[in-house]
Amino acid sequence: MAKLQAGYLFPEIARRRAAHMLKYPDANVIRLGIGDTTEPIPEFITSAMAKRAHELSTLEGYSGYGAEQGEKQLRAKIASTYYGGLGIEENDIFVSDGAKCDISRLQLLFGSNVTMAVQDPSYPAYVDSSVIMGQTGQFQTDVEKYGNIEYMRCTPENGFFPDLSKVSRTDVIFFCSPNNPTGSAATREQLTRLVQFAKKNGSIIVYDSAYGMYMTDDNPRSIFEIPGAKEVALETSSFSKYAGFTGVRLGWTVIPKELLFSDGFPVAKDFSRIVCTAFNGASNIAQAGGLACLTPEGLKAMREVVGFYQENTQIIVDTFKSLGFNVYGGTNAPYVWVHFPGQSSWDVFSEILEKTHIVTTPGSGFGPGGEGFIRVSAFGHRDDVLEAAKRFKQLYK
Amino acid sequence: MAKLQAGYLFPEIARRRAAHMLKYPDANVIRLGIGDTTEPIPEFITSAMAKRAHELSTLEGYSGYGAEQGEKQLRAKIASTYYGGLGIEENDIFVSDGAKCDISRLQLLFGSNVTMAVQDPSYPAYVDSSVIMGQTGQFQTDVEKYGNIEYMRCTPENGFFPDLSKVSRTDVIFFCSPNNPTGSAATREQLTRLVQFAKKNGSIIVYDSAYGMYMTDDNPRSIFEIPGAKEVALETSSFSKYAGFTGVRLGWTVIPKELLFSDGFPVAKDFSRIVCTAFNGASNIAQAGGLACLTPEGLKAMREVVGFYQENTQIIVDTFKSLGFNVYGGTNAPYVWVHFPGQSSWDVFSEILEKTHIVTTPGSGFGPGGEGFIRVSAFGHRDDVLEAAKRFKQLYK
Repeated sequence: MAKLQAGYLFPEIARRRAAHMLKYPDANVIRLGIGDTTEPIPEFITSAMAKRAHELSTLEGYSGYGAEQGEKQLRAKIASTYYGGLGIEENDIFVSDGAKCDISRLQLLFGSNVTMAVQDPSYPAYVDSSVIMGQTGQFQTDVEKYGNIEYMRCTPENGFFPDLSKVSRTDVIFFCSPNNPTGSAATREQLTRLVQFAKKNGSIIVYDSAYGMYMTDDNPRSIFEIPGAKEVALETSSFSKYAGFTGVRLGWTVIPKELLFSDGFPVAKDFSRIVCTAFNGASNIAQAGGLACLTPEGLKAMREVVGFYQENTQIIVDTFKSLGFNVYGGTNAPYVWVHFPGQSSWDVFSEILEKTHIVTTPGSGFGPGGEGFIRVSAFGHRDDVLEAAKRFKQLYK
Repeated sequence: MAKLQAGYLFPEIARRRAAHMLKYPDANVIRLGIGDTTEPIPEFITSAMAKRAHELSTLEGYSGYGAEQGEKQLRAKIASTYYGGLGIEENDIFVSDGAKCDISRLQLLFGSNVTMAVQDPSYPAYVDSSVIMGQTGQFQTDVEKYGNIEYMRCTPENGFFPDLSKVSRTDVIFFCSPNNPTGSAATREQLTRLVQFAKKNGSIIVYDSAYGMYMTDDNPRSIFEIPGAKEVALETSSFSKYAGFTGVRLGWTVIPKELLFSDGFPVAKDFSRIVCTAFNGASNIAQAGGLACLTPEGLKAMREVVGFYQENTQIIVDTFKSLGFNVYGGTNAPYVWVHFPGQSSWDVFSEILEKTHIVTTPGSGFGPGGEGFIRVSAFGHRDDVLEAAKRFKQLYK
């Protein structure tokens, strides 16, 4: 624990925002920092949750402990909806209370004696959970990295896909695509190379596809679209950014039966043991919501939610492009990655907050490779996003 | 992982039940095994959850990520309801998706280099999570114990309270009262000794009070009723057995600001970092249910739920007593601990299942000290409990 640097990124940003609001109590602060959904959940979905809640007061509708792995019907529906034709089955799906929580349970599965690689920059929960598990060495302030972690640098120069010829072998590779924070998505060809790399090295890929539905290009939405991936990868995902479930809490992890440890033992079997010991299943009410999400009507509603945030993304991209910035991401993810070459991310973050009352996220919070960037999230009300665009234009005109 | 013995106890029982039902497809199987609530949740509480679900479809009522530590109002309400006058405050409360999940997050906090003690017998998640974290040695089949764990034997002879003079010092002491599985509750005097023991040894007590509302005697419902406990103990609890929330998922952990690691660092600060990294808060809908539970009307409804199961408990206690068994527990907990001296718990479990179609829990599943006992859970519909009583009377007449 003592190795951890400062606070987890997002609570740290929340603290700074709170301090700012104390300093400027009348300011209209706009939050494009934490990727927190802002739009109401479609009624079709909340009605299903309300119905399940009411049913819990009836003898027939009451349910107590469910399977730790999730309700059978929901597992089957996730498999057929998101992995149709890919050979992923109901039993490969583990329903959870969210991808972040599952990442931590996966770390528990891997234990403290593994080595891991992450994209640099990447979602901080991978590294932080690794530090907490004791997998890493000390934080090295000169390079802003933890010892024993392989940082796979992702920059505009390499198209945000790491040069695998320079990546050392590790036991586990965390890989997020569409990526948080850069908003970039790996192509079929790139992911094929990643799968081959993992196969050659006997590594397990933890593929985070929480933004898959934001993909507009023809890139894979799941790692399992890549031949051979089932033998080297598991995948984690979530309803958070599709249905506005950040507060409801529902996600899933796919562990194909083909994925084995080096001794031949199925990874899914051990993970099942982990969830039985360290978890008690997602809320039955949230699971009812998940089932509603995966009906034709729910899927349509989710696509509308995603579409709304995609429009926001475009507004932000256009704004920064019009101001002459180099802008990345945005096409396949609700995140816009703006370059401020030579500047400190936290300085840029602070200047934007101070002068425009807009909360963004400093790129360096995602790893040393994020230095000089800020991430602008597209999760916000339309009026706020338009107002933010106006303020950015005033600041950088 | 490889050290773990067989399956986690309760999924193992579920498997055996399923096999039994396959063998006797027409049998009316009664489940008094897993302590899973069966009675509908009072409408007052589910209505509050349904209302919150509907509100998530409105601009004003929508909420995304909440504080990982739980909603302010719920934290305050838990503090004032269950810890009124004990000096526990809102910030000491961490709302969670259940006690089992929190136990695992606590293990993550403690890390792999700690020693721990458990009551023997005790709820298996303590030991299993410890094994997964790598805190223990190998399982020693001769004594049915893991190396590096201090098993504090609790038997009828010592009133189910360990002889602390024979207990070695450990970093962490898991202690559950009212106890699962023995149903016994520690007295004020016993807990005072436990607190003094922990203070002397510089140990942290993880006190599990998930059955506190089942207490009928004048024993403490919280460890914080014991003077000095705030410097040596944290406490975990849950709405599961009070409101039938086993499927809804809502619990909490109390970490007093007075509880410090040996270097003076507040335990709560590190746990806050753990929940921020490994958790994303309990479902907002479940939290709305928790708030409803803690209104006067909700408290009354919970007391009725608890009262119903207490009546079940009495039926089970009376049944086994009338059959001449030595019966423990039941007064302060929804579990009845029945002695079958000289017999194997799993044999008794199997005989009962085979001959009466009743699922119980073999005592040895809770540790070697549980050998020769079975746990009968009082969670069941009244008709089922009465029918079970009849079958037990036929079997053992």
